[in-house]
Amino acid sequence: MTRPDTPTLDRIAGPADLRQLDDRSLSRLADEVRSEVVSAVSETGGHLGSSLGVVELAVAIHAVFNTPMDKLVWDVGHQCYPHKILTGRRDRIRTLRQKDGLSGFTKRSESEYDPFGAAHSSTSISAALGFAVGRDMGRPTGDSIAVIGDGSISAGMAYEAMNNAGHEGRRMFVILNDNEMSIAPPVGAMSSYLSRLYANEPLAKMRSLAEGFEAALPPPMRDGAKRARQLVTGAVQGSGTLFEELGFEYVGPINGHDMDQLLPVLRAARARATGPVLIHVCTVKGKGFAPAEGSADRGHGVSKFDPVTGQQAKSKPNAPSYTSVFGKALTDEAARDPNVVAVTAAMPSGTGVDIMADRFPARVFDVGIAEQHGVTFAAAMAASGLKPFCAIYSTFLQRGYDQVVHDVALQGLPVRFAIDRAGLVGADGATHAGAFDVAYLANLPGMTVMAAADEAELMHMVATAAAHESGPIAFRYPRGSGTGVEMPERGQLLEIGKGRVVKEGSDVAFLSFGAHLSEVEAAARLLEADGVTSTIADARFAKPLDMDLIRQLARHHKALITIEQGSVGGFGAMVLHALAAEGAFDQGLAIRTMTLPDRFIDQASPDDMYADAGLTRHDIAKTAKQAMGMESNVVTLSRA
Amino acid sequence: MTRPDTPTLDRIAGPADLRQLDDRSLSRLADEVRSEVVSAVSETGGHLGSSLGVVELAVAIHAVFNTPMDKLVWDVGHQCYPHKILTGRRDRIRTLRQKDGLSGFTKRSESEYDPFGAAHSSTSISAALGFAVGRDMGRPTGDSIAVIGDGSISAGMAYEAMNNAGHEGRRMFVILNDNEMSIAPPVGAMSSYLSRLYANEPLAKMRSLAEGFEAALPPPMRDGAKRARQLVTGAVQGSGTLFEELGFEYVGPINGHDMDQLLPVLRAARARATGPVLIHVCTVKGKGFAPAEGSADRGHGVSKFDPVTGQQAKSKPNAPSYTSVFGKALTDEAARDPNVVAVTAAMPSGTGVDIMADRFPARVFDVGIAEQHGVTFAAAMAASGLKPFCAIYSTFLQRGYDQVVHDVALQGLPVRFAIDRAGLVGADGATHAGAFDVAYLANLPGMTVMAAADEAELMHMVATAAAHESGPIAFRYPRGSGTGVEMPERGQLLEIGKGRVVKEGSDVAFLSFGAHLSEVEAAARLLEADGVTSTIADARFAKPLDMDLIRQLARHHKALITIEQGSVGGFGAMVLHALAAEGAFDQGLAIRTMTLPDRFIDQASPDDMYADAGLTRHDIAKTAKQAMGMESNVVTLSRA
Repeated sequence: MTRPDTPTLDRIAGPADLRQLDDRSLSRLADEVRSEVVSAVSETGGHLGSSLGVVELAVAIHAVFNTPMDKLVWDVGHQCYPHKILTGRRDRIRTLRQKDGLSGFTKRSESEYDPFGAAHSSTSISAALGFAVGRDMGRPTGDSIAVIGDGSISAGMAYEAMNNAGHEGRRMFVILNDNEMSIAPPVGAMSSYLSRLYANEPLAKMRSLAEGFEAALPPPMRDGAKRARQLVTGAVQGSGTLFEELGFEYVGPINGHDMDQLLPVLRAARARATGPVLIHVCTVKGKGFAPAEGSADRGHGVSKFDPVTGQQAKSKPNAPSYTSVFGKALTDEAARDPNVVAVTAAMPSGTGVDIMADRFPARVFDVGIAEQHGVTFAAAMAASGLKPFCAIYSTFLQRGYDQVVHDVALQGLPVRFAIDRAGLVGADGATHAGAFDVAYLANLPGMTVMAAADEAELMHMVATAAAHESGPIAFRYPRGSGTGVEMPERGQLLEIGKGRVVKEGSDVAFLSFGAHLSEVEAAARLLEADGVTSTIADARFAKPLDMDLIRQLARHHKALITIEQGSVGGFGAMVLHALAAEGAFDQGLAIRTMTLPDRFIDQASPDDMYADAGLTRHDIAKTAKQAMGMESNVVTLSRA
Repeated sequence: MTRPDTPTLDRIAGPADLRQLDDRSLSRLADEVRSEVVSAVSETGGHLGSSLGVVELAVAIHAVFNTPMDKLVWDVGHQCYPHKILTGRRDRIRTLRQKDGLSGFTKRSESEYDPFGAAHSSTSISAALGFAVGRDMGRPTGDSIAVIGDGSISAGMAYEAMNNAGHEGRRMFVILNDNEMSIAPPVGAMSSYLSRLYANEPLAKMRSLAEGFEAALPPPMRDGAKRARQLVTGAVQGSGTLFEELGFEYVGPINGHDMDQLLPVLRAARARATGPVLIHVCTVKGKGFAPAEGSADRGHGVSKFDPVTGQQAKSKPNAPSYTSVFGKALTDEAARDPNVVAVTAAMPSGTGVDIMADRFPARVFDVGIAEQHGVTFAAAMAASGLKPFCAIYSTFLQRGYDQVVHDVALQGLPVRFAIDRAGLVGADGATHAGAFDVAYLANLPGMTVMAAADEAELMHMVATAAAHESGPIAFRYPRGSGTGVEMPERGQLLEIGKGRVVKEGSDVAFLSFGAHLSEVEAAARLLEADGVTSTIADARFAKPLDMDLIRQLARHHKALITIEQGSVGGFGAMVLHALAAEGAFDQGLAIRTMTLPDRFIDQASPDDMYADAGLTRHDIAKTAKQAMGMESNVVTLSRA
């Protein structure tokens, strides 16, 4: 594939080089960075649209601010590809999201230009405030700049941070990257808009700030005072006033693809600011690449594509995705029971509840990036007699943990938690791993916790959850495609706290919880070749446990191995606690708990990640042999 | 003690009776409820100030709305005493916060008038929206009303809920109980205020709402149109506009102690509202009881007191509180190292960081009720090279769990978590129990987790945390007074991952984690009387574990018992996982893990709560005997 022609970019080893360029060259540089992003992502796939939207912004920030001494924090971090290209990582940009390659997000361990990594949204303002305090307390750090999207800034956490930053009053910069607002109208209507603005009393301080900005402009710009004034004034209605109420100076909106607006405004802000400043920048997601700009999601997350046509490579899955199986099963339940409702936190298609929304739009609630609210809102719907399914990824449910404890579990309310992306998730890496949900849910009194071994099991669990009225219930399932099992017409009701035996043998017993079952089956086949026969059980429930089954497995085998796609403290821990309480270890029981190891696993394919985690069929077989005394107690233990 | 004279209240069995009263009688009723609250809390202690502030509001809401069909949700719930007196619980009001008595918070299981319990702040708007959806979907429920304080509404979760409720546009009521704003100025300056107000274009809709309200007023009030108009208009600046931006109709501010304002405004709002309405009510915390009104904290939380003088009973502690020991040790560290900073989420005195703030005010950050932001803010301060101590109660750190995972643990940043109120906390009951922190922290890669066995150990842990630069570290300690041990001049650095042997014996080994050590020592004395000798070790660390110590204990005793003031999945689980991995159970090991049981424990004294939990010295001794085969495997196992 031919690479784009990038003469300016080719001379940029890092931001220091970039700062030698004049403004016209910076514009050219931005154009070349955009080509490079399209070219690289066409090979890797990734968050194309967000990155294309901030090309000029990334160039302008690095041109104006003194990174890495100044701390630049990209919220969420998925828009960081231009930033990575400009900060010494261009040579690895075609390894994005690959094993041993660049992370798809900002990451402290990857570059000094990533002072605070991200992947979950809405953390950047808190981080910028922390750096501002560090600077004010004499740490060797300069200004701090958060770049946050209009979706992310709506989360409660960002509001908490704005509120605190406004109160602290320290010099810091929040750049609101607004790709909801079209650029044309405010700019086009500028004159009437400005006359309204200046007539408005509470914005007096903006006037003086505007004047200050003008004075700070470089000479060529200072002549265009009227223009500059346009660039630094605030909105009468809309978001502007909210930020001002929280104690920020508000600057904008400006066109985030126009270097002639970005550069002077950032320079003026840097020269003048004494407290917290919000700079409202309007951008277009997918900017400059027609196939992205033209698509419904603006090229948000793409697979590899043709850099000319934008045509994405489609891998043909052998089985439906867990997400779609959930979405369809939920929709079926909703069709049968008018009390079924669904909650998502800004992830309707990611969670599959969009399938239900197509048929029952009034019964699907997208609460925005607001997991805390979403969980409690679901709890109250349950209290009113509705049957809420709260569909939140494992990693994001961490955001609503207190609400799960305090509003759901403590009140025993029947909220159904549909926990997608459980276990290791592939290209999104460690920040998105669903590693901890079983550990943080199974210890909650009254909580029922299930995991689906395959997509048919997921259907049963949706049906079981819908029918479960006596308290909260959660079911987890992995990212990606199912195993291709035959699908039932309709999910059947599982008996609460009962597992199932998948295969009978006599030497070793495997007790699998969730989607690692197929790998366990593969391990059993390996053992078979060595003359070792296995019983395999699918626990289905981490809570309540199937103690009859567990006792059976313990009694009639030489060893018992639990396996799960989660951290310590989860399913295996529940089994150990319960067996210890019964005195099952007193006379000897060769038991091992295979879990994710005690470290974070970097992005790769899920298979590679589980290999890294020591959870392959070979690891499982080896652990079984070791537990049976067939091998010495070597490596491959679950806790590294 | 003489009870107050309450002829009106004596005739009120519940809200239905109250609704038969005329407005003058309702005012009298409020006065009597206030006397009753003072009288009851003088006997029980509790959240006096908040409850006194909402006496008129509670009467007015129950008079105007159709509870319990209408769902009234008190945010936090500690202001609920007047509500409990009015809703059939007067006969038990003097059992508040006692064993087997009324909860100090709202609680679903206690009354149909408590449709959604609380104790953690800022959940009420989410709950009210959930009930509104339930009503709109045909569930048998009426209006929903959230009452939320000006502190609670500043939390991110409340913002998320307002944002979503404004978007949904459903009829619901949020009553902002504002006890920061003095009533006098807005009312006194009403005329100039109103003229400013009506000149302001964006508030046009308020005008028409005001007119609607006037028309809806009962005839005697309608004549006083000017007055009524004052009651229903919004503020030009300040909170008003924020609520409107979020899609709420804004009504107020009104005097929350004046029934002549409360009743007509609530009636008009109920008659007219079509979407979400925010009613801004100004109250005085501690209102009507001079000793509370005159105290710095407005009588927020009081012990038993003299109902005439307000003089509180002071129990003389034998030892300093853990909180004060932490506060002083932190201050000493801050004096030695200018990089030490502290973060609290609206709990400076509760966490003891106020002690540091007295000496180093610029280095203590109260971020408000904002645990999510607070944790990430601390993470960034750590990234800048500061040494942040993030002091958040165990139960409230649940609010910042994702930030602990994503911003702290994943980046390996040395944030020091000072976790007060670990374990069972007494009168505040199940909602405030610090039960889950070890389970939700010890599974995080790179996290170091300690628990203090006594107040001297806490000093060592503060010193150890201050010196720990290689990653995050947490230390937990209970509510209340220490054990009275001799205190060192200065905390010493503990070796990371090393426990200590407290007492040597030969029969049973106790491995205690945290503040239950003294109860374990008492159990050992009981066993001694039966000729059983014990080794007692204080693990100090749940992560990393002291495997040398654990192996020693396992090898040289007939049984090994772990004890902790926390749930399953915590310290005991880590020990079990590690031993299983080593094959320690293969040949037999009598091990038991004593934890909190798998149910929530209602309020009582901490000792009574631990008795309820099966964690007394007798339970411990019995478990040891059973593990040694001296008793049959009966009850008292850790998991009920």
